[in-house]
Amino acid sequence: MKKYVYSFNEGSKDMKSLLGGKGANLAEMTKIGLPVPFGFTVTTEACNKYYDDGCAIAEGIVAEIFEKLSDLENVTGKKFGDVGNPLLVSVRSGAVFSMPGMMDTILNLGLNDDTVKGLSALTGNDRFAHDSYRRFIQMFGDIVLEIPKSKFDAIFDAKKEKEGCSFDVDLTTEHLGVIIEEYKKLVRSETGADFPLDPKDQLMEAIKAVFRSWNNDRAILYRQLNNIPSNLGTAVNVQSMVFGNMGDTSGTGVAFTRSPVNGEAKIFGEFLVNAQGEDVVAGIRTPQPISEMAVAFPEVYKDFTRIAELLEKHYTDMQDMEFTVERNKLFMLQTRNGKRTAAAAVKVAVDMEKEGLIDKKTAVTRLEPAQIDQLLHPMFDAGGLAKAVKLAKGLPASPGAATGKIYFHAKDAVDAVANGEKVVLVRQETSPEDLAGMVAAEGILTARGGMTSHAAVVARGMGKCCVAGCSEIKVSEDKKIMEVGERKFAEGDYISLDGTTGTVYDGQIKTVTPELSGDFGTIMKWADEIRTLKVRTNADNPRDSAQAVEFGAEGIGLCRTEHMFFEEDRIPAIRRMILSDTEEERRKALATLLPYQKSDFKGIFEVMGDRPVTIRLLDPPLHEFLPHTDEEIKALAEKINVSADKLSKKVDELHEFNPMLGHRGCRLTVTYPEIAEMQAEAIIMAAIELKKEKNMDIVPEIMIPLVGIDKELSYVKKTVLETINKCFEREGVTVQYLIGTMIEVPRAALTADEIAKEAEFFSFGTNDLTQMTFGFSRDDTGNIIKEYRDKLVFEEDPFQTIDKAGVGKLLKMSVELGKAARPGIKLGICGEHGGDPQTIEFCHDIGLNYVSCSPFRVPIARLAAAQAAVKAGK
Amino acid sequence: MKKYVYSFNEGSKDMKSLLGGKGANLAEMTKIGLPVPFGFTVTTEACNKYYDDGCAIAEGIVAEIFEKLSDLENVTGKKFGDVGNPLLVSVRSGAVFSMPGMMDTILNLGLNDDTVKGLSALTGNDRFAHDSYRRFIQMFGDIVLEIPKSKFDAIFDAKKEKEGCSFDVDLTTEHLGVIIEEYKKLVRSETGADFPLDPKDQLMEAIKAVFRSWNNDRAILYRQLNNIPSNLGTAVNVQSMVFGNMGDTSGTGVAFTRSPVNGEAKIFGEFLVNAQGEDVVAGIRTPQPISEMAVAFPEVYKDFTRIAELLEKHYTDMQDMEFTVERNKLFMLQTRNGKRTAAAAVKVAVDMEKEGLIDKKTAVTRLEPAQIDQLLHPMFDAGGLAKAVKLAKGLPASPGAATGKIYFHAKDAVDAVANGEKVVLVRQETSPEDLAGMVAAEGILTARGGMTSHAAVVARGMGKCCVAGCSEIKVSEDKKIMEVGERKFAEGDYISLDGTTGTVYDGQIKTVTPELSGDFGTIMKWADEIRTLKVRTNADNPRDSAQAVEFGAEGIGLCRTEHMFFEEDRIPAIRRMILSDTEEERRKALATLLPYQKSDFKGIFEVMGDRPVTIRLLDPPLHEFLPHTDEEIKALAEKINVSADKLSKKVDELHEFNPMLGHRGCRLTVTYPEIAEMQAEAIIMAAIELKKEKNMDIVPEIMIPLVGIDKELSYVKKTVLETINKCFEREGVTVQYLIGTMIEVPRAALTADEIAKEAEFFSFGTNDLTQMTFGFSRDDTGNIIKEYRDKLVFEEDPFQTIDKAGVGKLLKMSVELGKAARPGIKLGICGEHGGDPQTIEFCHDIGLNYVSCSPFRVPIARLAAAQAAVKAGK
Repeated sequence: MKKYVYSFNEGSKDMKSLLGGKGANLAEMTKIGLPVPFGFTVTTEACNKYYDDGCAIAEGIVAEIFEKLSDLENVTGKKFGDVGNPLLVSVRSGAVFSMPGMMDTILNLGLNDDTVKGLSALTGNDRFAHDSYRRFIQMFGDIVLEIPKSKFDAIFDAKKEKEGCSFDVDLTTEHLGVIIEEYKKLVRSETGADFPLDPKDQLMEAIKAVFRSWNNDRAILYRQLNNIPSNLGTAVNVQSMVFGNMGDTSGTGVAFTRSPVNGEAKIFGEFLVNAQGEDVVAGIRTPQPISEMAVAFPEVYKDFTRIAELLEKHYTDMQDMEFTVERNKLFMLQTRNGKRTAAAAVKVAVDMEKEGLIDKKTAVTRLEPAQIDQLLHPMFDAGGLAKAVKLAKGLPASPGAATGKIYFHAKDAVDAVANGEKVVLVRQETSPEDLAGMVAAEGILTARGGMTSHAAVVARGMGKCCVAGCSEIKVSEDKKIMEVGERKFAEGDYISLDGTTGTVYDGQIKTVTPELSGDFGTIMKWADEIRTLKVRTNADNPRDSAQAVEFGAEGIGLCRTEHMFFEEDRIPAIRRMILSDTEEERRKALATLLPYQKSDFKGIFEVMGDRPVTIRLLDPPLHEFLPHTDEEIKALAEKINVSADKLSKKVDELHEFNPMLGHRGCRLTVTYPEIAEMQAEAIIMAAIELKKEKNMDIVPEIMIPLVGIDKELSYVKKTVLETINKCFEREGVTVQYLIGTMIEVPRAALTADEIAKEAEFFSFGTNDLTQMTFGFSRDDTGNIIKEYRDKLVFEEDPFQTIDKAGVGKLLKMSVELGKAARPGIKLGICGEHGGDPQTIEFCHDIGLNYVSCSPFRVPIARLAAAQAAVKAGK
Repeated sequence: MKKYVYSFNEGSKDMKSLLGGKGANLAEMTKIGLPVPFGFTVTTEACNKYYDDGCAIAEGIVAEIFEKLSDLENVTGKKFGDVGNPLLVSVRSGAVFSMPGMMDTILNLGLNDDTVKGLSALTGNDRFAHDSYRRFIQMFGDIVLEIPKSKFDAIFDAKKEKEGCSFDVDLTTEHLGVIIEEYKKLVRSETGADFPLDPKDQLMEAIKAVFRSWNNDRAILYRQLNNIPSNLGTAVNVQSMVFGNMGDTSGTGVAFTRSPVNGEAKIFGEFLVNAQGEDVVAGIRTPQPISEMAVAFPEVYKDFTRIAELLEKHYTDMQDMEFTVERNKLFMLQTRNGKRTAAAAVKVAVDMEKEGLIDKKTAVTRLEPAQIDQLLHPMFDAGGLAKAVKLAKGLPASPGAATGKIYFHAKDAVDAVANGEKVVLVRQETSPEDLAGMVAAEGILTARGGMTSHAAVVARGMGKCCVAGCSEIKVSEDKKIMEVGERKFAEGDYISLDGTTGTVYDGQIKTVTPELSGDFGTIMKWADEIRTLKVRTNADNPRDSAQAVEFGAEGIGLCRTEHMFFEEDRIPAIRRMILSDTEEERRKALATLLPYQKSDFKGIFEVMGDRPVTIRLLDPPLHEFLPHTDEEIKALAEKINVSADKLSKKVDELHEFNPMLGHRGCRLTVTYPEIAEMQAEAIIMAAIELKKEKNMDIVPEIMIPLVGIDKELSYVKKTVLETINKCFEREGVTVQYLIGTMIEVPRAALTADEIAKEAEFFSFGTNDLTQMTFGFSRDDTGNIIKEYRDKLVFEEDPFQTIDKAGVGKLLKMSVELGKAARPGIKLGICGEHGGDPQTIEFCHDIGLNYVSCSPFRVPIARLAAAQAAVKAGK
């Protein structure tokens, strides 16, 4: 028969999934002989069974609980409901992962009209006993019976007022007795039943309440935000009470074995004399630094530091502990691995490796990859942040902090920066024409667009702070007004953005730029030694490329050539090309672009040196280069000296109902081979010239986008090859090169064997692949995805973390088919997912050669790749 | 060693893929002892090798050819280049499938300045010999040497004029001699080389020309149009000449064993005395009916009818034969299965079964499924068609013929029809609001949109003639003008449409409505006995449902509920629902729709009786129900008494960049469960009321669209189930039902095992699945697909015939995963592909239970399903 309840001396730290984190660690501490008040744990499986049984605890489990309760009575020598020596317990939830959203604690369970007298006698403190009883009823009423806490407070406050008491402590035992009776009346009128006086009833009700709290709204939300599966269930810990509030020889505290703020190797914590644990957490009284405990309880403190050291060695990680001192005796109530800042995580990991506590492989697993972002971007000064007024919340599109004056137009932003101002660019949404403004600004705020909108993608690429899709603000670009609720902000007003949380603040907040400390360098070096997955970057210009190399990028996985076309000196030529009526005109326009593209590529190749560079041929539909409103069309027509009618007709002609699935990618090359010819020539000539001028051996990787059909690839490849061979012949020089494709259309993944016959490398374009596999347009489905997360359809956003079951299946399939058809094929990923740690682990597992991500995510990817290698090696 | 050349006595009719159709049949006739001039066939493999070897004939093959030539000389007793008894041959291409686009025939090969004298002596006809030589040089020069035919004509005509000859026959042997010399001069100046006088050179050049012609533009186009793989290659037949033009005891003809027009069991053909075969085909002289041959050549005719009968029995199919009579001796030059009209195909198949020549299974394979469409739709009167003037060509979107006055607006069309006019509705493109006009019109013509545009899909559903995407016409709906080149058509002008070919004609053409003959019924009955795949229909109303049942539909595979919303009495309610700000308002609007939907379903259920009906819940994005231009918005706002501003804001709010991948399908239900609740109630209440009123046992199949995630399906299913159970409780009656989903998102196919846990049936929505798998928006990629077909990227349009390698792989995967998770799962297809014969065969092979197609394709699908069963059974 399955066992659903474990006494603390039956478990261990390895039984977390069954006993929850708290229960497993209480068992572990019991096992290694630390002073832990005895108790037992009802397992997570009991919780799941509770739900399976229609929210009821099976009789067998009830029996087990009472059996363990009886053991507890034997160990403590106390008895549930015994007036002479009553057993009182705490009931606490304990999920596998710590979950703040859930029911936390009920203390003093077991008190009733009789046992309160026993407690009074035992402690010699009548008032303490009654106050404990009063608190218990209130806590139980609120949490278990779900009676609004305010109703208890109302009774309590009325009594205080009636008796003229200024403070709670002014209430006498008698007053408390009256309050207890009124509380019981309240319970009767609210629930239609008496307050349960039988401690066993109290216990069962409390356990059920913990189970219920697993599925309360806050807990569900927390799980969603933290990607915790909803079928884990929670355990319940029932532990005999110890009292830190039994006078000046008692106390309670929480402490870390090292500083969770900066990682310093010194006990860090707080302590309160004559208090219960909840008082520290609740912040009712201001606790003292832990160091003062050495003065107040020298012996106990010595004992505590010994235990702390022992626990850290035992768990080989920094511990976060709770303890209580009852009449000079130390009791450990909890230990767990302590949460820490990124800076602390780095220092602790490096120190522990030096101390010989952990090895390098373990050290690199001690940092949350996502967390180290903090170390790479400006942050708000903590003091300034504390006083800041929140205005609105949008999507945390690109991390970091920014503060500056609002400007609504790219040009205005550029001018303001030229005048020495700091600027936040605020737009309805950005388009490629805002690029200069985005470069100039400290940060970008948009009212529309999701995590993969133009603003978000470009900002992440630049490592620039961005809050996107902030629907709480209304932006009128014409009027240069931003509205938030009733408030209006004009051009020149200050705001501040936190791109890590998506928060928009009023006014200026000071920012600080963290430096990459030596320890950070050390741990990244270890990561590089451990990982097998290469890390490249997505970059389109020498500036971003250099930044990425500084962050450790080993190549460029995606250079988007269209970004180069949007710059002010090039866009007229691309527009002229689009407006051409004949191939000849088109070629003429393209010829003016060729030198620009070539020099772009030369710049990038020079920065990257012998690191590989993958260049994607033109991808977006041509209408992206044209304006769309009548006004803009008119303005452009005048500027480029074309009739507005002709321009407007071309815009209409290029209009598509679903541009995502339209005339773009390699389809453009099939229609206009001259575009690919120009691009291939620019790429190859850049390599040839660097060979001639600097004797550099560049091996460009030419990537053909949006391929879905093998013959489509061979058609385009033929054009590219012919161009390359023409260059070789003309220049009398050859260079090496690779030709490959993006796998971003589901059909390409399904027929990867056929495609691999033509492609020397695959790069998974998981943005588009996710869009098409799910049938989700990322420009349109921001709200749907939010709704799906709320309604439990998604545990994770598939545009952030690869969807293993669907998109991941296509990736795996492609890898297998591709390798079968071309054993040495190079495989990488260049979608936004390439910077997501979970996805990186998946990429490692299915055997990709590299991931590619925006420059500022390169360190994250290096670390995640190392962690994947460690995990896979286990 | 591989054999590349076969003498006629070495092959048989089963060697078609090697010898081509013509070669295999010549060998077969030789084998069964019929009088066939001897010769040999160079195989299709030799053709493929020619291409593999860089357009050269390998030495080994050349040697084989000359070996077989030498055999031919031995058999005929004649010799290549021998002045005394010269061997002359014809060289003909012979692909596996007959391909009119390819090089056809060179006659009299072997003639040169010497052998022409031999021919002259042998025939005793000097002029005949020189004219043959003149023709040979011209034919060879044109076809093999690729010299424009006009240049030969110019020489010939100049000579005629110079000599004052009115007719060719007026030219004397001497004149012809001069022409021959001038022809040779022309060859020299055009090619830089002398005309090849060595018959062996002539032969090798001619063979190469046949190989080359396999890849000429016309041949490529023909293969594309007829889905013939491009890697089959063509064979070449070299056959000793016989002459039908040796005077009045000679002649030539073509004949069918039965009438290819109506199938009558009587020899049908034409005959010319003293003529070469090409004269009949080229239509230079008007041939006599074959019956007159009985008079001219009674003995030969008797012989011929005997051979015709023998061939039909031998091939067990109607034969199309070519023959020549040389000096009273009959020679068979070709036999093949004869092409026939749909009507003839039906009669021949049924007759042959009655005659015991073939069995029923064979009979059903004798009809081209696509062809029988002709039997179901109006056609143009042949006489009228002959005189008709073509205006333009668009896509053959929905078959049939239509003639009527042009109207540009649905309302105008409806009014005109009410006045007794016949109408062709001409639009830029249609939208759901044009529905009434489409119903009223005889046919629909649109300037934009592909084979799966709104106009095309709806017209096919109605069985109404439609030409779509006719880019040669310009439509100005405002001005009520249609332009074709220089011509303008106004409202009220007559045009005619052929939806089977996509042709638009000027003026009126008489149409005839074919009747379904008894033989057609017979063969469809046989098809039904043989097939295992069920055939359902896509229908949204009782009218179409009844039509489909008449055509043999066994259920409804797809009832699109949104079509019902577009009708004039419902659209205000759906718009009110969309404009609602609260759930309550939405529910109110939906409540007014409920009775409409319920009565729609009752109507359909009543028509369908105990046949299954699959109803799809609302699928399109809500903005489809709202107008989009400022003008339309203003008009509607006034009509429904809402501020234009509010309406415009809602339209903006609902705007999507890629609506195909946006807020539609089951995603709507996740956001607005009340819509699915209303629809589920309407469906179930329709079934309950029919149970109560008529004791009918309806088992509705409720289909949830656009599912990509198992949890999405379970979320929506829960809403539907709760509604159903509420109805059951309220009414005190239950009915059976199924809940399933469309598999139309790639991810659904990839995770079909998970989805099958929630779905009782799958229906493959291959339109969307093809769009998403390829990343092709069918609204936008009409031109791309055309270009891809031109450039050999596509052999078939994947929106017409399922793409087996990609989309088909997903289907197979889904079937396997789905059956593994739920063994009894019902599987069907309801995309446009469901009516395509090749796709139907694929569906049979992967184990679907049914296909569903528009009513007018139901007979095609029944036949195709039977053919698939016959084919699989072989």
